[in-house]
Amino acid sequence: MKLLKEKIEREGRVLSENVLKVDSFLNHQIDPVLMQAIGEEFAARFKDAGITKILTIESSGIAPSMFAGLTLGVPVVFARKRKSLTLSDNLFSSKVHSFTKDVTNDISVSKDFLSNEDVVLIIDDFLANGQAALGLLDIVGQANAQTAGVGIVIEKGFQTGGSIIRERGVRVESLANIKSLVNGKVEFFEEEPTV
Amino acid sequence: MKLLKEKIEREGRVLSENVLKVDSFLNHQIDPVLMQAIGEEFAARFKDAGITKILTIESSGIAPSMFAGLTLGVPVVFARKRKSLTLSDNLFSSKVHSFTKDVTNDISVSKDFLSNEDVVLIIDDFLANGQAALGLLDIVGQANAQTAGVGIVIEKGFQTGGSIIRERGVRVESLANIKSLVNGKVEFFEEEPTV
Repeated sequence: MKLLKEKIEREGRVLSENVLKVDSFLNHQIDPVLMQAIGEEFAARFKDAGITKILTIESSGIAPSMFAGLTLGVPVVFARKRKSLTLSDNLFSSKVHSFTKDVTNDISVSKDFLSNEDVVLIIDDFLANGQAALGLLDIVGQANAQTAGVGIVIEKGFQTGGSIIRERGVRVESLANIKSLVNGKVEFFEEEPTV
Repeated sequence: MKLLKEKIEREGRVLSENVLKVDSFLNHQIDPVLMQAIGEEFAARFKDAGITKILTIESSGIAPSMFAGLTLGVPVVFARKRKSLTLSDNLFSSKVHSFTKDVTNDISVSKDFLSNEDVVLIIDDFLANGQAALGLLDIVGQANAQTAGVGIVIEKGFQTGGSIIRERGVRVESLANIKSLVNGKVEFFEEEPTV
């Protein structure tokens, strides 16, 4: 997605060979115009997949998911990273390790909002080691729902998450796929064709 | 806001005299159509306030803020509840106690995204004891930015937060203001006039 790649090149900060910081438009400050374009792009790519629900994870997955949900006409559910006292025990849950923050979180989704009749589009901001996506896929599986695919804003294609998910036969659509962050420079894989 | 009140009456669950659960459209599953209407309502109410930035707090403030930001043409910044390892020390921060979850969080905003030139609209999902709003006001103050007001999706008007904030001279716009949750029934205050 050209608009997104240009934004990454202009505002992304390469902190190491593994870390790209995009706090100015995605992970802390959020650009609503870009999020709308991203959400509409996810919606376009999955428009024939019969999506009934979008599943994401707090917090940075919420903004792009909102616009995808609006365009597809379906609700968005965000998995919580900690069990809230106001949520009941009526939960699907899975464990997700964040290598960036070096913590393992329980992520959970109420059984009220995911069922075996759902066709789910999973959306997240980053795909690196794939831990969050695997946790969300696990939750979709617990609900006996169907996964239509995974929509990722920025894939770090030099890490293993994308391969792990695709090898399971899950369709992954990344709007920007990073080949390398070596020498402080962002290099992208060629754009994958829009399906 | 009629649409919101009807949704609360239809889907809100009164768990006690103090707790209203709106997990089906705001706090866990999110209704993008309603969020768009809410965001546009905030934008309409604050359209002449010269807003340059929306400040909210993860996670449930993000969705309504996105649509307000899109309509007003300004970026959204969400305060984080824990310091992330990928954020630097370049932070404004404040302490916020959540009575619902009985935890005190550090909330923080990077100094890169809030300055003394900003006119800030604070948006949050709930206003009850006012702790989150006070923390966000504190952060706006640390940045020497100006607060245009506070936009709240659901105010629990029988708790003290609204009074505390308004007594400071801060404009508070609540789209639904709850008078009572007694006997399992949601009773609203009369709609405040749109300014």
